[in-house]
Amino acid sequence: MGFWKSWFTSDSAATARTTPMEEKALEVLGDRAENASRIFFSTDREIDLYELEELCDAVGWARRPLRKVKKAIEHSFLVVSMWEQRGERRRLIGFSRATSDHAFNATIWDVVIHPNFQGKGLGKALMRHMIKKLRNEDISNITLFADPHVVDFYRTLGFMPDPEGIKGMFWYPD
Amino acid sequence: MGFWKSWFTSDSAATARTTPMEEKALEVLGDRAENASRIFFSTDREIDLYELEELCDAVGWARRPLRKVKKAIEHSFLVVSMWEQRGERRRLIGFSRATSDHAFNATIWDVVIHPNFQGKGLGKALMRHMIKKLRNEDISNITLFADPHVVDFYRTLGFMPDPEGIKGMFWYPD
Repeated sequence: MGFWKSWFTSDSAATARTTPMEEKALEVLGDRAENASRIFFSTDREIDLYELEELCDAVGWARRPLRKVKKAIEHSFLVVSMWEQRGERRRLIGFSRATSDHAFNATIWDVVIHPNFQGKGLGKALMRHMIKKLRNEDISNITLFADPHVVDFYRTLGFMPDPEGIKGMFWYPD
Repeated sequence: MGFWKSWFTSDSAATARTTPMEEKALEVLGDRAENASRIFFSTDREIDLYELEELCDAVGWARRPLRKVKKAIEHSFLVVSMWEQRGERRRLIGFSRATSDHAFNATIWDVVIHPNFQGKGLGKALMRHMIKKLRNEDISNITLFADPHVVDFYRTLGFMPDPEGIKGMFWYPD
């Protein structure tokens, strides 16, 4: 709980001089001014699909048709991206989105952090940002489907596997 | 596989003389003409919320604010209801809906069949109709969260619990 919070900085100065797509300054990385970078969240959906594909490639995901990725982003309830800003250059380093009925349920999909930025608490920060946004919209049931190696990661964020024996199930053709 | 299919009848005659909300004649119930009833699917979202609440009451679900139920129905990707038509009277006997990103994933919620109509294969017919509709929309990943006592029901429909160790998880506050 304490660790990821230390990544947050007051965002007033940062957001005042950046575009509206940046919502929250997370951290200044680098100890020399010319190398300094900031990390931001955004809920803007105008994401360069090739840049997103590059991010997903970096973690080894199977490629998906960009036409469908575009549609999925358009029809997600919430899209949160994470950016590293270094000088004028902005780089997509994290992404997540959620489907929802806008009332009761949300399901989080496609959580990704670039390998170079993993192990710094950014994944937790991204997920906490997702949860906060969903809670602000009065969504009470937040779900996801976790690969075995990230079950413990989500557990530390308050996600429970199979609560009261409820099973996540996937449809496959007979 | 064979059993539920026997519930379907050719729907051309039925739909020709009914309103557009009815899409598919399932079965003629009752053996005397004056007691005959037909069962229909509909994807119309104009559902009487009090009638839906009555159906959910009948299976013992906790009541939910109708304002939120209305919003959830509006923002679901697919809503399928099941109706018994007896003469001029139409009665809501089943319901299900799915959220989706319209591209890759759909998650099925709120599957309910009135207790008086359970054990007749109608739940399976409803789910197969949902799956067919989602597949027609090119959705490849159909998911749901199943209570322990219905895991086997969904398994017979081709849903797999925890495939490759993927865990369904629910968020709870710390």
